[in-house]
Amino acid sequence: MNQSGFIYGGDYNPEQWLAMPEILEQDIEYMKEAHINEVTLGVFSWSVLEPEEGVYHLEWLEKIMDQLYKNEISVILSTPSAARPKWLADKYPEVLRVNADRTKNLFGGRHNHCYTSPVYREKVGKIDRLLSEKFGKHPAVKMWHISNELSGECHCPLCQKAFQGWLKKKYQTIDALNMSWNTTFWSHSYQNFEQIESPSPKGEMGLHGLNLDWKRFVTDQTADFVAWEKAAIRAGGSELPVTINMMYDFQGLNYHKFKDLIDVVSWDNYPTWHKEAEEVTALDTALQHDFMRSLMKKPFLLMESCPTSTNWQSVSKLKRPGLLKAASLQAVAHGSDSVQYFQIRQSRGASEKFHGAVIDHYGGKDTRVFREVTETGEALLDLAQIAGSTTKAQAAILHDCESRWAMEDAQGPRNMGLQYMNTVKKVYGGLRKLGVNVDFLDMEENLSDYRIVFAPMLYLFRAGIEEKIRKFVADGGTFVMTYWSGVVDENDLCFLGGTPHGLMDVFGLRSTELDALYDQDVNAGVGEGKTYEIRNFCDLVKTNGAETLLAYRDDFYAGYPALTKNVFGEGEAYYVCADFEQAFYDDFCRKLAEEKGLERAAAEIPEGLDVATREDEKYKYLFVQNYGAEPAAFPMDTETYQPMTGEYDGVVRRFETVVFRKEK
Amino acid sequence: MNQSGFIYGGDYNPEQWLAMPEILEQDIEYMKEAHINEVTLGVFSWSVLEPEEGVYHLEWLEKIMDQLYKNEISVILSTPSAARPKWLADKYPEVLRVNADRTKNLFGGRHNHCYTSPVYREKVGKIDRLLSEKFGKHPAVKMWHISNELSGECHCPLCQKAFQGWLKKKYQTIDALNMSWNTTFWSHSYQNFEQIESPSPKGEMGLHGLNLDWKRFVTDQTADFVAWEKAAIRAGGSELPVTINMMYDFQGLNYHKFKDLIDVVSWDNYPTWHKEAEEVTALDTALQHDFMRSLMKKPFLLMESCPTSTNWQSVSKLKRPGLLKAASLQAVAHGSDSVQYFQIRQSRGASEKFHGAVIDHYGGKDTRVFREVTETGEALLDLAQIAGSTTKAQAAILHDCESRWAMEDAQGPRNMGLQYMNTVKKVYGGLRKLGVNVDFLDMEENLSDYRIVFAPMLYLFRAGIEEKIRKFVADGGTFVMTYWSGVVDENDLCFLGGTPHGLMDVFGLRSTELDALYDQDVNAGVGEGKTYEIRNFCDLVKTNGAETLLAYRDDFYAGYPALTKNVFGEGEAYYVCADFEQAFYDDFCRKLAEEKGLERAAAEIPEGLDVATREDEKYKYLFVQNYGAEPAAFPMDTETYQPMTGEYDGVVRRFETVVFRKEK
Amino acid sequence: MNQSGFIYGGDYNPEQWLAMPEILEQDIEYMKEAHINEVTLGVFSWSVLEPEEGVYHLEWLEKIMDQLYKNEISVILSTPSAARPKWLADKYPEVLRVNADRTKNLFGGRHNHCYTSPVYREKVGKIDRLLSEKFGKHPAVKMWHISNELSGECHCPLCQKAFQGWLKKKYQTIDALNMSWNTTFWSHSYQNFEQIESPSPKGEMGLHGLNLDWKRFVTDQTADFVAWEKAAIRAGGSELPVTINMMYDFQGLNYHKFKDLIDVVSWDNYPTWHKEAEEVTALDTALQHDFMRSLMKKPFLLMESCPTSTNWQSVSKLKRPGLLKAASLQAVAHGSDSVQYFQIRQSRGASEKFHGAVIDHYGGKDTRVFREVTETGEALLDLAQIAGSTTKAQAAILHDCESRWAMEDAQGPRNMGLQYMNTVKKVYGGLRKLGVNVDFLDMEENLSDYRIVFAPMLYLFRAGIEEKIRKFVADGGTFVMTYWSGVVDENDLCFLGGTPHGLMDVFGLRSTELDALYDQDVNAGVGEGKTYEIRNFCDLVKTNGAETLLAYRDDFYAGYPALTKNVFGEGEAYYVCADFEQAFYDDFCRKLAEEKGLERAAAEIPEGLDVATREDEKYKYLFVQNYGAEPAAFPMDTETYQPMTGEYDGVVRRFETVVFRKEK
Repeated sequence: MNQSGFIYGGDYNPEQWLAMPEILEQDIEYMKEAHINEVTLGVFSWSVLEPEEGVYHLEWLEKIMDQLYKNEISVILSTPSAARPKWLADKYPEVLRVNADRTKNLFGGRHNHCYTSPVYREKVGKIDRLLSEKFGKHPAVKMWHISNELSGECHCPLCQKAFQGWLKKKYQTIDALNMSWNTTFWSHSYQNFEQIESPSPKGEMGLHGLNLDWKRFVTDQTADFVAWEKAAIRAGGSELPVTINMMYDFQGLNYHKFKDLIDVVSWDNYPTWHKEAEEVTALDTALQHDFMRSLMKKPFLLMESCPTSTNWQSVSKLKRPGLLKAASLQAVAHGSDSVQYFQIRQSRGASEKFHGAVIDHYGGKDTRVFREVTETGEALLDLAQIAGSTTKAQAAILHDCESRWAMEDAQGPRNMGLQYMNTVKKVYGGLRKLGVNVDFLDMEENLSDYRIVFAPMLYLFRAGIEEKIRKFVADGGTFVMTYWSGVVDENDLCFLGGTPHGLMDVFGLRSTELDALYDQDVNAGVGEGKTYEIRNFCDLVKTNGAETLLAYRDDFYAGYPALTKNVFGEGEAYYVCADFEQAFYDDFCRKLAEEKGLERAAAEIPEGLDVATREDEKYKYLFVQNYGAEPAAFPMDTETYQPMTGEYDGVVRRFETVVFRKEK
Repeated sequence: MNQSGFIYGGDYNPEQWLAMPEILEQDIEYMKEAHINEVTLGVFSWSVLEPEEGVYHLEWLEKIMDQLYKNEISVILSTPSAARPKWLADKYPEVLRVNADRTKNLFGGRHNHCYTSPVYREKVGKIDRLLSEKFGKHPAVKMWHISNELSGECHCPLCQKAFQGWLKKKYQTIDALNMSWNTTFWSHSYQNFEQIESPSPKGEMGLHGLNLDWKRFVTDQTADFVAWEKAAIRAGGSELPVTINMMYDFQGLNYHKFKDLIDVVSWDNYPTWHKEAEEVTALDTALQHDFMRSLMKKPFLLMESCPTSTNWQSVSKLKRPGLLKAASLQAVAHGSDSVQYFQIRQSRGASEKFHGAVIDHYGGKDTRVFREVTETGEALLDLAQIAGSTTKAQAAILHDCESRWAMEDAQGPRNMGLQYMNTVKKVYGGLRKLGVNVDFLDMEENLSDYRIVFAPMLYLFRAGIEEKIRKFVADGGTFVMTYWSGVVDENDLCFLGGTPHGLMDVFGLRSTELDALYDQDVNAGVGEGKTYEIRNFCDLVKTNGAETLLAYRDDFYAGYPALTKNVFGEGEAYYVCADFEQAFYDDFCRKLAEEKGLERAAAEIPEGLDVATREDEKYKYLFVQNYGAEPAAFPMDTETYQPMTGEYDGVVRRFETVVFRKEK
Repeated sequence: MNQSGFIYGGDYNPEQWLAMPEILEQDIEYMKEAHINEVTLGVFSWSVLEPEEGVYHLEWLEKIMDQLYKNEISVILSTPSAARPKWLADKYPEVLRVNADRTKNLFGGRHNHCYTSPVYREKVGKIDRLLSEKFGKHPAVKMWHISNELSGECHCPLCQKAFQGWLKKKYQTIDALNMSWNTTFWSHSYQNFEQIESPSPKGEMGLHGLNLDWKRFVTDQTADFVAWEKAAIRAGGSELPVTINMMYDFQGLNYHKFKDLIDVVSWDNYPTWHKEAEEVTALDTALQHDFMRSLMKKPFLLMESCPTSTNWQSVSKLKRPGLLKAASLQAVAHGSDSVQYFQIRQSRGASEKFHGAVIDHYGGKDTRVFREVTETGEALLDLAQIAGSTTKAQAAILHDCESRWAMEDAQGPRNMGLQYMNTVKKVYGGLRKLGVNVDFLDMEENLSDYRIVFAPMLYLFRAGIEEKIRKFVADGGTFVMTYWSGVVDENDLCFLGGTPHGLMDVFGLRSTELDALYDQDVNAGVGEGKTYEIRNFCDLVKTNGAETLLAYRDDFYAGYPALTKNVFGEGEAYYVCADFEQAFYDDFCRKLAEEKGLERAAAEIPEGLDVATREDEKYKYLFVQNYGAEPAAFPMDTETYQPMTGEYDGVVRRFETVVFRKEK
């Protein structure tokens, strides 16, 4: 979109200020001063764009676009579908959602529309097309932003029918569905597809196959709605790229299913900085950036972030001085081609009136926040050449949305908490502390580009993953899998004959029992002179060829394998039997990285630093950030790796970002 | 009502005992023995008064009234509107409430009526008028008690329509409403008033202007219902005073809006004694008494209190020996002209059958409770001359119900808890420990009668409060305001141009940012050789004329002002930037009280004592109560201040009340 | 049913495996190897038995029965009423339940039928009768299992009407009902039975008499449904015994009301072993076994238990080696004639797919669980002669379901927790540690068979219990009652004139006040050189003849009685005024057991052991189990008491069961 540098801007809602034209004028002056080169318009603007059915007011939008363009500020234009005018909900009640308990929503909130409703699609299509016709070729407009933070589900009769159709297409016969869902349990067999109802706390919640397919349907139906909006934009004549803005660790949708619909991934990042140690938050945020980048394996956009405190969090902590720039450049370090805020000018009323903004209610530019926004803008200008560069990774983590859905619905070994994401984070942290770039994959993707792939808790097997893993190891890859993997098939039906299904020879073992631990229970894995604490899960495996590297210390399974390794073909398959502490993953990742010669950004990385690389055809860029409490020594050969961010004295200070580049 | 002394009595429900006439007879004997001179009749008696539509049975009530009168026991007569007969709910379903989620209530509970319903009003009006005609001139009857513990809200179609009318009257045009509520945010603009729906978890909860106006409407509609009942009483020919019984820290209604409708404030006091240290509970209770007294700035009635344990609390602790008298006289010390109980005789069944009562299920008078009730009756006789006397205060706390509603709905700096009432309590405690009487004011009231006014967290400005404060300070008053004040206008729309709105010159500063702290975070204010702990909130102000008295110790704003003082006109304006610990308020209030020469009940008050004054034309009365664990020395010049409660040895014991009087 | 030994088996659902006939064949081989001699068929099989209305498929059931019979495996045949086919719910919506909030359920879950619905009864009756006709005389079938884990309630119009009829039958006149429920409180009087609605969070929840009668109605209506099913079975020609499977500490039904309908009690036992110390869990489980045994005072069946981890608990802990046998034999020790599992073969999908089973998804018999199941089967064969023997008890605990319902709904002294079951457990534990067998009784039963009866918190008096207690003591019995007893009559109406109602002379005291303690509050009872901690409740009694054995140490009632004893007639009546710690009950029970010469299984029982006896005409059997962490010495004269379980060296190891027998 903006090949000459980074996008810098964010959500801007001039329609809230039409009665105060002097404000709009001043805003543009402020934007220029802060080096803002983009604004996102049109998010939630429907009631101003179409105040009565069929009566359109686009002139204010055109006027502000013209002004922006004159001032060299680009526009990402949003479709207004995430919130609808009152008249629409009143006239066509079918557009409002029905909840899982079958109560109907009233007008209100944001995501409160039925994505199946033909009426809603018609009305959305009409205005989208009109926006495309009117603004699709406006020189300021560079990209389309479809809807906003897509989420939620609808259980209305239209959606029930659509779900039944979806199931019929998938299973063909009702017998096949009954078999896959094991409906004979508790006499839940269906005689025909028309009998099926979506999961409900007033009805059925325990049929895991139904729950899983419903989640898949919600994703597919939401994607279909996005496709509808995209088609309307195209029908209006615009061929500009489109994006949707995704959310942090969002489990309501399988984001992988959207990557063929959009041209670029964007997401909204709202960490609770200053709640835990900064490096803990930084690691968590880095993971999300890498997850988002991995979806399309190319640069993404940071579509929203907050210039200071975020009003809907439990405590709205001010961002400490320097953190705004650090957090913004962390996005860039992990692959973003933009830094964007919600929002440019703070709203005067309603639920986000205290959300941090570039320009606050006071309205002056003599604020700490505005100063830091400006400094961040300057930093992005300095780094402009990095925009568009990519990230290469030799290690990957398998993190499959559908498997996670199934696992968390399983009524299985530990209903009080599976600790799934904590386990993923421990693996990710082990790798990142070594300066190893990490990609996230789902089961439909290819493993062959990586040297090491980690699969924490790969409960559900689909998309032929067992064959992919077998081939990956046979061909020389290193695959690390944990307890509770390969347990159910793609419809959540338990595999018979032993687990991990289809891979018992690859790992040289079989899982015989899975013990779950109460919060107060502790075990340990011992071996090679080390002891690592274990909590939550202990898989009791029977080895058949695998070598035992660590063994349990306690309980009736003391001495049983806790970590195994099996050579299979040209590769190695490790099985992590238990939920180990971080120290285990730190040591284990280091060992593997050294053995497999993984590329690392630096030889040693002090605690608290986030070090990442991007590269283009000519250069490799190295980002070093310090989230620790103290300045950290980080010696670099500045002949090879030239600092791009001013003088460099070998030390990185708290919240400081140093970027180096070297020629390839 | 009873100028010759205190009202002593409480709720009495003879209709529960009509089948046992010997019980009714004995009750009156017991009342006389306990010095009870009043009972409240008719609370929840509708189903006995009108067992079938239009069929009235008032004879039992007349009979008991006659008996009471013969025994010199007065009656406060209640209207029965707080609970309705089953036949009424069955025949006219519109009288039952609709909840915020739009589900309709079944018959049951207490406050379960639509206060808008014309049918309900008609039926209530009819029986109220009949009671007035029949008993309004009965010599026993001294006062009307309208409904009971008014509370709750109704979202039925009738109420929706009434709310729309209320809004139309307030805003005149839909554009004005849209502007005030900032409905453009999330496309929530209305095209006409008929589209507006009350807040609902199934619809809209995030439009703060809507939420706030709804709460105002609920108050106004409830007040209108009270006015309706009062009119029916008047139409029946009675001109006796009316009251409503209010509740502890109740946020469902703005009680200030009722003071023009009633003749006297009464309230129901149910502290959880013996849960925390007694002096903590005593301070909290004193605050409520003072709040209730402040509503009309004259004596109030303690309409309900419990003779021993309260059955609906989490733990029904027995009142320790002596506490009943102490708690009863505390009400008197803080301005009550009555001590009344719920209830005289304990019910045999249903939800309050284990609520403490003067006469319990056992039925004998040889109980500890009956003995203490009798002793309390004796004490009231000894103090009879104090009834009718008033309380004078030179210090006030601004505590505005509407501002608090808005603040707690704000989605602002600290959604996990604003600590608003704790902050009010710290101010109140600081003053009360000095023996300073305190009034509570809302923004519609006059400040000019006070030397010092405190305004903790005065978030919303309305009723021209900024002008009142400006004038108050200019004229020589001392005004103390805290962080997060003057932020929004009366419709919860954020002020532009800096805060505290309209008072930046008065305080000599501007608030630039508001930092919120997690529970584990601590800062401190330092200066003048003192250090005071800070939690929850730190306002970062930019002074412009104000003097910095304390500064922050920690964080990036170490050294910034934490307490400032500005001389403006003849007065002083203090700004408390942070949520300080109690010790700060203790020292600060003492300093101000000394500087401003506030009248104090005593020079030094030992920890744990509650000391308050009342006065009439001739005397000043001093109440000293000890809620501490140990006896406390409290030397008094008994020549000037004569003990009214027996011999006085200079020591006040646990739960002891000593009352002195001096001639003016 | 199986006089020649114990039933060993459990739930088996071949209908889930019809597509895999090789599995069914192998299952029978496995059963035989594990000494399984029974399976329970038909639980939740309706949708397979009658896939379309009126179309029955019973042939698969017949085939598997024939195969089982050939292999000497018996069948307990279940009626399918606990879950219904989808077509039935779709065609006859009345069969699905209405919740207390009056929302209608969708199809789903298990217990989701209206037990009043004539349509549901008709359909259930039809299939039950057909099963009876077809299989009632099949040689494999030994017993009927009606429905499954009966529970829940329905608030549909049909149930409302039935409830009104039930009330009319009970009270005859609406005045009698109004009087009993004290409906005058809050104006809740009814004019006729048709006005009455079941308790609802949307309506009435505070009328305790209504709540209590509703619970009684739910029990009666459920029992009536069971009677309906039983009649259908009998109509089909089968006269085999019937059972229903009950649940742990289940408060939804009064199980005592079912004992005249069924031939044998069975129950489902799912303790959370390994969460607390094993002996704590073992004591709790023993109590439930004894409760179930006491219902009919004869051997019961352990209808369900889990071979290893239970998937719906918060943490699905593996059963430690040896525990399965111990827990199974504990049931036998306390009177079970069976050990049965849910389930034989683990389901592949839906909500219990990870519930432990004899044969798991892996499917091999080379598992730890299968080995332990086999060992347990062997142990049962060794002990076969014990089947059918009974348990004799000289001590009993009064534990009345209706009193407990009322107490827990009372809005009384301690709404944050009455600790009722903990109190029962303390009494039970005190007795069981002495090796005293204990029966549980409800108020309708006879006390005269016992030497000592304990009555913890006997809040509600019904069924003439005060007369029974009076006679029991007068005739020489020892009766121990606690605080908060004899407070209300059978309709939850408070007794007037003093409590414990009707027994003040028997106990030589009157309860004057009941103090409740916060969690942090502690008192103690002191006397006879001992001090016992007290929490939660302190009854202040006025003695009139009773001797004070312990007195309160603290608070204003220090020195008041905390434990009293009164000689009445030939017997003794003890009153425990407060909620004492376990040590009190240990000492108190020991003293009473010694004084009254109660029969004890052993002179001294080490901590952690569960020791129980059964007997038949010829032998007395002694079960010794160790749930402590360490081996325990347990010396026995093996000449008199011969070990039945192999060699015996005087020591019982963790999870070991030693059974002795002696001739009578």
